[in-house]
Amino acid sequence: MDLLEKRILEEGTVIGTDILKIDSFLNQQIDVSLLTEMSKDVYNHFKKYPVNKVLTVESSGIAFACLVAQQFGCRMVFAKKHKTKQLTDAYYEAKVHSFTHGDDNIIKVTKKYINNGDVVLIVDDFMATGEATNGMMSIVNQAGAKLAGIAIAVEKGFQDGGKELRGKGIDLYSLAIVESMSEDGIQFRK
Amino acid sequence: MDLLEKRILEEGTVIGTDILKIDSFLNQQIDVSLLTEMSKDVYNHFKKYPVNKVLTVESSGIAFACLVAQQFGCRMVFAKKHKTKQLTDAYYEAKVHSFTHGDDNIIKVTKKYINNGDVVLIVDDFMATGEATNGMMSIVNQAGAKLAGIAIAVEKGFQDGGKELRGKGIDLYSLAIVESMSEDGIQFRK
Repeated sequence: MDLLEKRILEEGTVIGTDILKIDSFLNQQIDVSLLTEMSKDVYNHFKKYPVNKVLTVESSGIAFACLVAQQFGCRMVFAKKHKTKQLTDAYYEAKVHSFTHGDDNIIKVTKKYINNGDVVLIVDDFMATGEATNGMMSIVNQAGAKLAGIAIAVEKGFQDGGKELRGKGIDLYSLAIVESMSEDGIQFRK
Repeated sequence: MDLLEKRILEEGTVIGTDILKIDSFLNQQIDVSLLTEMSKDVYNHFKKYPVNKVLTVESSGIAFACLVAQQFGCRMVFAKKHKTKQLTDAYYEAKVHSFTHGDDNIIKVTKKYINNGDVVLIVDDFMATGEATNGMMSIVNQAGAKLAGIAIAVEKGFQDGGKELRGKGIDLYSLAIVESMSEDGIQFRK
């Protein structure tokens, strides 16, 4: 998506070889107009499926997933990864390794919010190795729900997450795929 | 707001004397249609101010704040309360005590995302003692920005947060104010 790639080039900062910082519009400050346009693009790609639920993981996926769900006119569910006293009902869980923080998180979704018969679109802001995505796919699986596909704002194409998912025949739609990046610049896959 | 009060009565669960669980539409599963209606109501109340930024705190305020910012056509910023490697720039911080979890969090906002000259609307899902709200007000203050007011989905009117803020002349708009609650029922302030 040209609009997103343009903004990444204008405002993104690469730290080391691994971190692409775009928190001026996607991760801490949210440019709601841009994300609404991105959500329309996601809707156009996935509207052929009868999506009735959008699933993401807290925190930085929530805004984008909320706006995607708005396009589909459906509900959004976010997996929790932080302690909470409020998750008192039975839940599905999956282990997710975070390369950014160097530790494991257990992500949890209350069972009653994803059901057999749901058609789920997974949405997230970033994908690199696909750890978070795999955790959410496991939860969709445990629930006996159907996966429509996966929508990602920014895929790090130089890591293996996307390749593996596409190899399994999953409909993965990334709005921008970073082919390579360094402090000297960012190249996108065309 | 009648629509919200109705949903709280239909789907809310009171645990003990303190926890109102409405994660079927506000806190884990998000009813985006309902939150869009709630956001329009918030916009109608605050449209008299030149709001150019909406501020909330992760995670459960993000969806509502995002939809409120969509109404104003402005950006949304969320304070971070969890560790992150991505917050490498200078930030404002404030200490927030969580009565739900019984501990203190430091909330942080990167300085460049709230500026002198900004007119900020604080948005959150819940308010009880007003700890999170006070932390966000401190950050607005530190930035030299102007506070338009505070929009809350559900205020626990039997705790003192709302009373104190209104006593200071702050424009606090809560869509539902719970006057009292127990496992036998929920009463709203009229």
